[in-house]
Amino acid sequence: MLYGHGDDIYSSKREVAANFSTNVWWGTPYQLLWNHLSTQLPLLASYPHPSAADLGNVLANQAGIDGNRVVVTNGATEAFYLIARCFSRRRAAIVVPTFMEYEDACRLNDVDVSFISRASFFEGKLGDANLVWLCNPNNPTGEVSSAEAILEIIGRFPQITFVVDQAYAAFCAEPPIHPKEANCFPNLILVESLTKCYGIPGIRLGYLIADKVQCEAIQAQRMPWSVNALAIEAGKFIAANRESFEVPLGELFALRNKLMNDIAMVDGFEVLPTAASFFLVKINREGLNAPQLKDMLLSEHGILVRDASNFRGIADTNHIRIATRSSFENSLLVNALKEL
Amino acid sequence: MLYGHGDDIYSSKREVAANFSTNVWWGTPYQLLWNHLSTQLPLLASYPHPSAADLGNVLANQAGIDGNRVVVTNGATEAFYLIARCFSRRRAAIVVPTFMEYEDACRLNDVDVSFISRASFFEGKLGDANLVWLCNPNNPTGEVSSAEAILEIIGRFPQITFVVDQAYAAFCAEPPIHPKEANCFPNLILVESLTKCYGIPGIRLGYLIADKVQCEAIQAQRMPWSVNALAIEAGKFIAANRESFEVPLGELFALRNKLMNDIAMVDGFEVLPTAASFFLVKINREGLNAPQLKDMLLSEHGILVRDASNFRGIADTNHIRIATRSSFENSLLVNALKEL
Repeated sequence: MLYGHGDDIYSSKREVAANFSTNVWWGTPYQLLWNHLSTQLPLLASYPHPSAADLGNVLANQAGIDGNRVVVTNGATEAFYLIARCFSRRRAAIVVPTFMEYEDACRLNDVDVSFISRASFFEGKLGDANLVWLCNPNNPTGEVSSAEAILEIIGRFPQITFVVDQAYAAFCAEPPIHPKEANCFPNLILVESLTKCYGIPGIRLGYLIADKVQCEAIQAQRMPWSVNALAIEAGKFIAANRESFEVPLGELFALRNKLMNDIAMVDGFEVLPTAASFFLVKINREGLNAPQLKDMLLSEHGILVRDASNFRGIADTNHIRIATRSSFENSLLVNALKEL
Repeated sequence: MLYGHGDDIYSSKREVAANFSTNVWWGTPYQLLWNHLSTQLPLLASYPHPSAADLGNVLANQAGIDGNRVVVTNGATEAFYLIARCFSRRRAAIVVPTFMEYEDACRLNDVDVSFISRASFFEGKLGDANLVWLCNPNNPTGEVSSAEAILEIIGRFPQITFVVDQAYAAFCAEPPIHPKEANCFPNLILVESLTKCYGIPGIRLGYLIADKVQCEAIQAQRMPWSVNALAIEAGKFIAANRESFEVPLGELFALRNKLMNDIAMVDGFEVLPTAASFFLVKINREGLNAPQLKDMLLSEHGILVRDASNFRGIADTNHIRIATRSSFENSLLVNALKEL
């Protein structure tokens, strides 16, 4: 572990009344999930499937692809580290600004790292990379590109492997790359998180979709039992009850639009455009930077926001990332900003 | 993942009435644990501590050592893989017969592997290894050596790092190496599993105890959040209620002794000596080997035993490993063996 990360609620000394620092979905029907999982705790008394292939088959089946094209992982994080490991001593380009996990995973696995802009990506200026990382929708900017545009680039560079992280797809109206489309591109690895859009980052559950050969290479080098039994069960339950767990995007966007407008009305804060439910805010106020704002909001209001300084590609300390929350919580934030 | 593993109950097509194939403790006060964990499921809605240091501090505190000498891991398995990673492109000696996970971890991390006997270990015949793996009590044989004898060897070879896996210590009367004793040996890494002796392999929880410098080297190269939030909570709960979770060794040994005697009375089965609650049985019956016996017991009686063929250092296919279970289950096994 090389860098600090975003959701540091665990280290917060003050009680947090509203946590805007994480873009994990907060509207999950938790009671439904907890009720189910509380009856499944005896699963913990046995080893899970060594590679969580039982859940992999369920997910593959739902997506209409072969089970050997899915690798279930300990959060999307394990997927990033396994992929980077496959490219040890080779070269990666990361499309920035974006969050640090791809870079951490590459550095830890001796992968040479360079950074390119999103514009360069779509111009096909990928340098000498063997591996290209793209987060779409992008964290932290909320920028999104169409599946079609991304696949066009992927098709043009068959010698390069592309990782497209779709962890935030549920927070955005633009359809992600479908696993079936990915079938046509042996040089594409899709990474999906089940913990962001279903609100359960504590359970550690993600997966990747790739060519069978790529999946085998990844499976061959991982340790067994990295995904715990309750995570597997949660994944199966959500898969069987997808409709109950869908993010209500219309409502969420209505909340987001009001929040963005309200913040934009406060003097000294510029709201940056987004296609997702989270967005960056630029601080244009003398003597106030993001770390200071974060500290003030937390200590005075119990409100946690994400200081965006440690995203690669955000060069200053004047940006915070806000994830839309409930109407009540959003008003707490807006009022707190007004009182500064 | 390179090899098959022991507890394959997940792949069993027939319902298992009694599972002797796993040496995970079956007598855990599960209701106590499930009752607690069922109230803690909302923890899954937030990220856990990135390195599970909160639990690490609890465990260190109980053992009377510094928090920076404990690394909490996703099962003992993650500890093995992280240790092997630290020794990439160096040389390991594994004390055999033993289970395959050390070897898997080494091979996956490009560590050269050789095998030595337990006798060679105590004679200090360690070859040119940089890293030596010892399972004590040993799986699958149940052989155990005193902490004193092991530490004598470790003290004699300060240039070699020793990994002593104590996952089975609770199933044995011989006291394990205490974390405080380990303080004196910067070349010793103790690995402890919380899932074997507390009966929760599905949750994935283990830890290692080592020198501060070694712990830092291990922490620096791992991914964040590999230990899930419920595992951390289970660890804290068990630590706070150790007495309730202690393995009742007297009762277990009484059950084991009866089971060993009963099996030894059945024609064609030789019970090998053990210091632990599990033991090897050698099949001395023409036309019957361990895979066949395993299949027959499962298909005809719903009884699962561990075919010991895939333990490194067990050269034949005539050994099964039996973990002592309840009086009723043990009698099912003995009767099934009699009926063969």
